[in-house]
Order: sequence, then C-alpha cells, then structure tokens
Amino acid sequence: MRIESVDFFYLSMPRVTTEADGSQDALLVRVRAGAYEGFGECEAAPLPSIAAFVCPLSHGACQPVSASVLGQSVEGPADIERIAQLVAYQSMDVLQAAHTWSGIEMALWDLLGKSRGQPVWQMLGYQRSHPKTPYFSVLFGDTPEQTLQRARQARASGFRAAKFGWGPIGRESAEIDREHFMAAREGLQSDGVLLVDVGQIFASDVDRAAERLPALQQAGALWLEEPFQASAYACYRALAERSGSVRLAGGEGAHNLDMARHLIDYGSVGYVQIDCGRIGGIGPAKAVADHARSRGVTYVNHTFTSHLALSASLQPYAGLAEHVICEYPGSPKPLALAITTDHLLRDANGQVSAPERPGLGMQVDLPALAGYVVDTEIRVKGRVLYRTPALA
Amino acid sequence: MRIESVDFFYLSMPRVTTEADGSQDALLVRVRAGAYEGFGECEAAPLPSIAAFVCPLSHGACQPVSASVLGQSVEGPADIERIAQLVAYQSMDVLQAAHTWSGIEMALWDLLGKSRGQPVWQMLGYQRSHPKTPYFSVLFGDTPEQTLQRARQARASGFRAAKFGWGPIGRESAEIDREHFMAAREGLQSDGVLLVDVGQIFASDVDRAAERLPALQQAGALWLEEPFQASAYACYRALAERSGSVRLAGGEGAHNLDMARHLIDYGSVGYVQIDCGRIGGIGPAKAVADHARSRGVTYVNHTFTSHLALSASLQPYAGLAEHVICEYPGSPKPLALAITTDHLLRDANGQVSAPERPGLGMQVDLPALAGYVVDTEIRVKGRVLYRTPALA
Repeated sequence: MRIESVDFFYLSMPRVTTEADGSQDALLVRVRAGAYEGFGECEAAPLPSIAAFVCPLSHGACQPVSASVLGQSVEGPADIERIAQLVAYQSMDVLQAAHTWSGIEMALWDLLGKSRGQPVWQMLGYQRSHPKTPYFSVLFGDTPEQTLQRARQARASGFRAAKFGWGPIGRESAEIDREHFMAAREGLQSDGVLLVDVGQIFASDVDRAAERLPALQQAGALWLEEPFQASAYACYRALAERSGSVRLAGGEGAHNLDMARHLIDYGSVGYVQIDCGRIGGIGPAKAVADHARSRGVTYVNHTFTSHLALSASLQPYAGLAEHVICEYPGSPKPLALAITTDHLLRDANGQVSAPERPGLGMQVDLPALAGYVVDTEIRVKGRVLYRTPALA
Repeated sequence: MRIESVDFFYLSMPRVTTEADGSQDALLVRVRAGAYEGFGECEAAPLPSIAAFVCPLSHGACQPVSASVLGQSVEGPADIERIAQLVAYQSMDVLQAAHTWSGIEMALWDLLGKSRGQPVWQMLGYQRSHPKTPYFSVLFGDTPEQTLQRARQARASGFRAAKFGWGPIGRESAEIDREHFMAAREGLQSDGVLLVDVGQIFASDVDRAAERLPALQQAGALWLEEPFQASAYACYRALAERSGSVRLAGGEGAHNLDMARHLIDYGSVGYVQIDCGRIGGIGPAKAVADHARSRGVTYVNHTFTSHLALSASLQPYAGLAEHVICEYPGSPKPLALAITTDHLLRDANGQVSAPERPGLGMQVDLPALAGYVVDTEIRVKGRVLYRTPALA
C-alpha cells in the first residue's frame, strides 16, 4: 500500500479561552493508503502543524513533513519506523514537525491495524490489553472551596483517583497552595489517590517548587507533575532528591524518544507521562514504556482531548499489567467527545482498556463534525498549499 | 516604548533545492517600538514560524507568540527576558514558538541598542568586541577529488580553518569517508584547521559513528560535529568517551537554554555551537556562553545565512577573548548577502568582529529585497491572519 493522501481537519469550539483546557480545539488527521484509511490526532497548535506539512522546501534538512510521507509504502510496523526516521532527518530543522508527524503516525497504525484486522497493541507485541485505572483530570478551583467541590465531584463520579492541575498553584504563597492541596485531599477522602499538576509554573526555580513539598507530603499526594520546563532535567533531579514520599511526574512536553528517556535517566521522575500526539506517535511512546520498565519507572498516558487520542495513548502500555494509572479526560469539551461516535467507557470495575477492535478501534464520523470545522487556507506565491478538505 | 508591530518577511531564492545549504531562504523579522525599529532573523522554516505567531488561541498554554509580544513594554534587557519567559509559558505547547521568538528577540536587542546608542555586546556586559577567527564553511564534495578542490579553495581564499559538512559522509563505508577526510587535510595543508560536520547522519548509532574516529584522528580533525540527533545526549557522551584527540561539537539544534546546557553536561561536547535564530535569541545564547566557560567548553556561533544573523551570533561571545572560533558563511546564496547592505568583512589579520555600531550594527535595505519576497497569505474563518507586508 502506498500513502495516497494525508488530510488535516482543524476543529474548534466556537469560543476558545485562555483556560488550561486542551480540549478546546483539535487537529484530526486522516491517512489513506490502498483500500484503507486511518485516523490520528496531533496534540498541537493546528495552524503551525498544518504549515509544517505543506510548507515549501527550505533546504535538505528543512523539508515539509509531506516530503517524507506522501507516496511511501506502508506494509508493516517497520515501514512506520522507517518513515519516522525519514521525517526526523529531512525535517530536522522544522521544529513543529514532531507534532505534525505524531498525528500521522497514529493514523498509520490505525490504518495498518484495520488492514490486518489487529488492534494496535497486538502489533506492538502485547498478548492482551490490560485494564487501567483512570484518574479524573480536572483543574484546581480559583478558591480552596471550589477545589473541594471538584474533588467531591470526582469521587461522586466514581473516581477514586483525581488529578488537579494548574489554576492558582505557584502564583501566590505556598500557604494558599497548601489550602488547595488539603481541600483536594478532603474531597477525595482519605483513601483517594491525589495527583497534582502544576504545569511548569516554577520554570527552573527549584527552591520555589520545594517550598510546596511539605504540604504535598501532608496531603499525601502521589506525584507532583511538571514543576519545571520540559527540558529542565537538572531541576527535576534536584527536586527529586528533596521530594521524599512525593514522586515527580512529567514527560508530556517530550517531542522525541530521547527527551523522555532523559527525563527518566537524568531527571529522576517516578512517573513518565507520554502524549502520543506530541512525541512522534505510538512507536516512540512504546519505546519509552520499555525504557520506563527497565528503570522501575511507571508509564502513564497523557491525554486531555478526544477518545481517539485516548485509545492511541493506551496502546503503548496496554500490555503492561503493572502500569495501571491512566489519565482520563474528566470533563472534555463537546468537540472532543464528538470526534468519535464510540467512547472508551469505564467497565464494571471502573476501569478502561484499549479496545479489542482493529487499529485504534474508534469510529470517526466526519460529517458530524461540520459545526466545528475551522475554515483555513494557506496560499504561497499564488498557489493554495492548504485548504480545509471536505468532511467526507 | 511599547512593541507596536512585528513584521515577518519570507524571502527565498527563486529556486530551492534539497542541498544542505541553509541560505536558500530566510525569515526576516522587523520589530517597531516608539521611534525605533530593529531587525532579526529566524533560522527556521518560514511558513510554520509565521503560523506560530498568528495562529488562533488553542488554550492557555498554547497561545500564539503574538499574544506575549505585541503591546509589551521594552525599556531594557530585563524586559526582553520577561517577554521570553512569557512566550515560554504561554506558548508552551506551540513547538515552533522557540524558532519564531528567536528572530523577534534578536530584533528587540537591535532596537534597544539603537535606542541607547550601544552595541548589543555592550548591553550584554562585555567591555569590548574581540576579533574572532572565521572558518570557511563548505559542504563535502561528491568525490574526494571535489573535497580536495574545495579545501584548496578555502586555503586560497585566505582561510586557515575550514569546516566540511554533510555530503556523502556516513552514507557509504568508513573507508570512503576516510578518503574525504584525508583529501580535506591535504587541501588545507598540514597547518590548516580541519573541522568535520556530519549533520546527524548517525541518528543514534554510536558504533557506526565510532568507525569514523580513526580516520578523523589520522586527518587531525579538531572536532566532529553533530554525529547524532540533537537530543541524543547519551550517544554524544558514549562517543566522547571513545573519541580521543577529536572532540565532539554540537548544539545548533538546541531550541532552549537547557538543551544546550545538557549537551555540555550530559553529552560531554568540547565545543557548543549555538544558533541565535533557534535557541530563543541572544539572551539564552549568552547564558550558554557563560555556562560553557564555567565548564571549560568552547563557545562557537552557528551561522549559515545572512550577515545580520552573523552579527547576532557573534554578540553572545564577543567579549570572550579566549573563544575565537567563528563560523563564517563561506559561499552563501545571493539572497543571504542581499539582506544587509553592509557585511562583516575580515580585517587585515583575516579576523571578524561584532560591530562597534549600535544594536546589531547592520543596515537592512527592505526595498532591495523585492526580488526575493515570497508572497504568502494565511486565512482562517475568512479572516486574513497574515499577508506579506509591504517592503517599506
């Protein structure tokens, strides 16, 4: 099969705000080869990601992603890896290329799985898809009282584990942050699993981050996520040496395998969180899972968007029975839910699993997305390089 | 002064090929604030870089670069640093943002220097601008005979040092590579300084890279540049432990300060090469120079394009008398030379220096670039987000 087409669908809620909710827009990718099609999703800024696919050639190491993808033969997983290497080399100087390629890579696995009648996790070498325990992912409230309510809501929705993110944490005093951590603990009850995500708020300030450790320990947080910028491995390590019972988590900013490996090896995280829509897709994510296992680090998916992205994010560690934590979009925007007609619902035990169906196992209904399409056109030297494709 | 406008000029040679020559196109940036304007250059794919400036908001950590720049006050270097932090935080998930911001940051230094009548290197705290010894930067020939001719040409042009890059190296046998290395040595004569750049050809294969070490040692190469992918620190270290008299060089792929620091601390390079058009501009490049000094590593600029970019790339280490190696575009395309009306020519000793003039000290003549402009238009939801500005 040859890759005949790659279509990008830029989708968005009618109104997008500066809240830290990544489900407000989406970049859906469709790849067609032979009699098959596959879907993927870039967890990325849509316009620059489309531009990285269609941009004119700058030089040999700064080629559009399309140059390495269109027309390529795809018969098996080795072809996906080969194309990935080609993109890495030929688009070396196109920074955005990793995000663009991530959605294409996912779609290629989906397509290949459909052509073989196999779920992606089986093509990755796993014998079965083990159920994962989802945690409820939500933002901190503006006040500790709001945080308390959200924690109670998580518990009431049947989630024992919840992750609280962003919001006011790190913006005022450590004492105010303590109130939020304790409110979250109270709402989750004493047996709830509390995860805290501070979204790089401390940039590279280890001491300011460390000021929050006593309260995190008191609240019994399992992990502190993304205290620093994605590449600040030395800061991660310095904080990890002081964090006691609270382990560090991070990795969503990794846009290649090395970055995730280094966060483990140099940054000493206890949990590595990979977004298949950024790291280059499912292949490198699986390699991270292998590396994490070898280092005694727990692999966790990073997903804040659609159930297509959720399925993709479960594949790389579907077969690892002992890695059970799963990020599960708690209250995504309607757009994120509309992308697939089916959803990965929790089973009787409150767990979710990568589907048994071929490919990513999710049905995308393009015509149903008409209300979310963001009409886009890119014109260079009078030639249309990109125009929103028809939803069909 | 408030930042009133940021204009991007996408320029290109009429014909662009897949050769590894980065001077075939350019993304020039003009920033206006108060009565002043400054120019910078992104060493990046133009279209995705423009898109990262104008793209619609995706969420709070995925904002267009423009959201952190337009309207900001800029009175001194601390403001540039403040805006840099804002971009890093608010455009955290826009991968391309670092490349976009790099050209803007340069332009802000240029503007600030002009408003104060000071060269940028002085604002960075340096007392004087020390002359640097440029090396001639050229690609390997297709045959050892061609490589020999190019080495002779470098020497005939008055360069004692020359860097040979890319071409056939790493694509065939180590024996053929040896012939190229020895041809370069012959053409440069026994007292010439030979530098070798293999452009990430070995990806992450340490053994294949190591096969080239004996020949590099025999040819007396000073450094081996970019054997691996930019983030492959562990591979760099493994090769550095085996490389003997040949030191490793790298860093052009760093798109933030941490990446360059880690290449030094984890990757054990002997030379760190920073492109101000990618790492986030002149500020982080100066921080890399400081770190390199503290680690006994030599700082080198990475520049393959215009003399505006060359001036910017000299500023971060202009005051470091002992760091004298300078990449100097050997045979850039006419476009790269046309961007500025003045050029950084070699002095009587064959050396170049960051100019004594205010800002970056280079005169950009926009109307003269009319023949190179790439007309571009980006339209989203019927609204024009970007259209090539007038050359005036």
